[in-house]
Amino acid sequence: MLTKVQVVTVGHAIVDVLAPSPDDLVERFGLEKGTMTLVDDSRAHDIYAALGPATEVSGGSAANTAACLASLGTRVAFVGKVAADGLGTVFTHDIRASGVSFEVEPSPDGPGTGRALIMVTPDAEKTMCTNLGVGAYLSAGDIDAAVVAGADVVYLEGYLCGKPESASAVAAAVSAARDSETLVAFSASDPAWVDMFTAELRALLDDVDILFANEEEAHRLAGTTDLDRAVEILHGTCPVVAVTLGARGSIVLDRRLGETTMISVPAHPVTQVVDTTGAGDSFAAGFLHGLVNGMGPDRAARLGALAASEVVSHLGARPVASLSERARSAGLL
Amino acid sequence: MLTKVQVVTVGHAIVDVLAPSPDDLVERFGLEKGTMTLVDDSRAHDIYAALGPATEVSGGSAANTAACLASLGTRVAFVGKVAADGLGTVFTHDIRASGVSFEVEPSPDGPGTGRALIMVTPDAEKTMCTNLGVGAYLSAGDIDAAVVAGADVVYLEGYLCGKPESASAVAAAVSAARDSETLVAFSASDPAWVDMFTAELRALLDDVDILFANEEEAHRLAGTTDLDRAVEILHGTCPVVAVTLGARGSIVLDRRLGETTMISVPAHPVTQVVDTTGAGDSFAAGFLHGLVNGMGPDRAARLGALAASEVVSHLGARPVASLSERARSAGLL
Repeated sequence: MLTKVQVVTVGHAIVDVLAPSPDDLVERFGLEKGTMTLVDDSRAHDIYAALGPATEVSGGSAANTAACLASLGTRVAFVGKVAADGLGTVFTHDIRASGVSFEVEPSPDGPGTGRALIMVTPDAEKTMCTNLGVGAYLSAGDIDAAVVAGADVVYLEGYLCGKPESASAVAAAVSAARDSETLVAFSASDPAWVDMFTAELRALLDDVDILFANEEEAHRLAGTTDLDRAVEILHGTCPVVAVTLGARGSIVLDRRLGETTMISVPAHPVTQVVDTTGAGDSFAAGFLHGLVNGMGPDRAARLGALAASEVVSHLGARPVASLSERARSAGLL
Repeated sequence: MLTKVQVVTVGHAIVDVLAPSPDDLVERFGLEKGTMTLVDDSRAHDIYAALGPATEVSGGSAANTAACLASLGTRVAFVGKVAADGLGTVFTHDIRASGVSFEVEPSPDGPGTGRALIMVTPDAEKTMCTNLGVGAYLSAGDIDAAVVAGADVVYLEGYLCGKPESASAVAAAVSAARDSETLVAFSASDPAWVDMFTAELRALLDDVDILFANEEEAHRLAGTTDLDRAVEILHGTCPVVAVTLGARGSIVLDRRLGETTMISVPAHPVTQVVDTTGAGDSFAAGFLHGLVNGMGPDRAARLGALAASEVVSHLGARPVASLSERARSAGLL
């Protein structure tokens, strides 16, 4: 890396395998529509065999955020693990082609590159079966403390909490950040994930400077279904809390400058919402781009809303259009 | 295979790698926009490294035809070669998930699975760099004579003429067909390919019962730029000649019942042409579906036009909607 990156995002390296699917396929595998389920190799094999013809496109929550950050002009690195296989080559190509620095060596043996088998039912809902593959073995040794130390923000996806190896990567990233005044940003990732690993996620919040969550995740992290109360609880621990509310926009609480600023930003207009995958990832990217460029929470949240509006307007979780051009047209950059 | 297939299609197993690309990328590699160029491993590596983030989707001319035939309800097998690698797994999954029988064992060593690097420029034109990979090593030994003998039609893509190994596969398929009254159908594939291997393609025409070509290919195969004359020349050798004319529809000459029938069929209406890749492949599928089900050339060509209208209305060369349902709605099945 020739120049310091401004943001390091850490998460699972995943290739999405998208297949239009009838409703009964979701039922046949006992899946709940609209949710994400972790599957092992054998179950992934069975589900893939039952899927219709598919399209492969790179994904992964923190990797999507990195791609959006690069599209906005932030210097960004992604840390995640791929295998030395076909999907690993695809993932590596795509993230680098997005302008993201990606220097983790592919794992020569063990499980394959992670993939998310995504059934797209006729109602446009998505049911995901994720096989983390080698991605689950991201560990402390993969975190380059010097890169984290040189960055303004290290961003961690919630999916890293749970498995011991990736939890060690989180701990290493947080430790490197603490030693060097790098801010720690964290995304709650998934309501079901919050339910599964509530204690682990809550314990981490003490080290989090900037928390991203959607409404459901905020409720579950805070242990209340009252949104105002949930935000207040989370803000008691995290100096910046950004909660995305889908079409209702977002609310952000920020007490970095002493007194708490609370702002509410509407969603950026979208002609047609095609696919909401990556909406949270892209909001986080827009917000962080604003933050590392010294913007206040209002403008940063507007950038987040703009990034999300691009990503939800087409199939796939990474931007197709240049986000920096979009932001300039909208007068936000 | 439990039941006999009606059609066997033979061609290159290819995964398409689609990347939105600026015009200057096409120029930088000295490519001609809108054409297909064969590239070796090293050049494919360089071009892939320069491409933006991409989407992977199964392709291959005769494989696309097989997928369309299956979607219409024809029992169909595809013969082509993949490697035991990630793209080979993707190709195998997708073709089988389309309902096509695909029984060729993946090659355990040697080159990887074939791929087409496709630059989609802002004008929606496509520039393809194809690395045939292990697909180029399809040979006589891969042709199951019994399967060809049991079928009504064996369909060969023009891209197989040229390399010695795949030419031996063509010869084996033709020989098996001749021994058992299986009809030989052939697609000219690509005007530039016809220019490169004019002698080889012309020599093959003696064995071809059903020829598919677009206008440019017909001109070059026949050696004249007068379409009527070209069709007449080709029909002198091939009992059925189907020439596709893009938005102007198609013309078909058929003398299987003695006297030549000449028909002209308009293109099936399309709201918006998004991507013409696979138009010829899908026309051939519709026509052959009609033919193996005893339809006359007029109705068969209308089925071809209907199949093409579905495939050109979205990105990707294989059908997304059920072609048999579309054909039933249109009163063609």
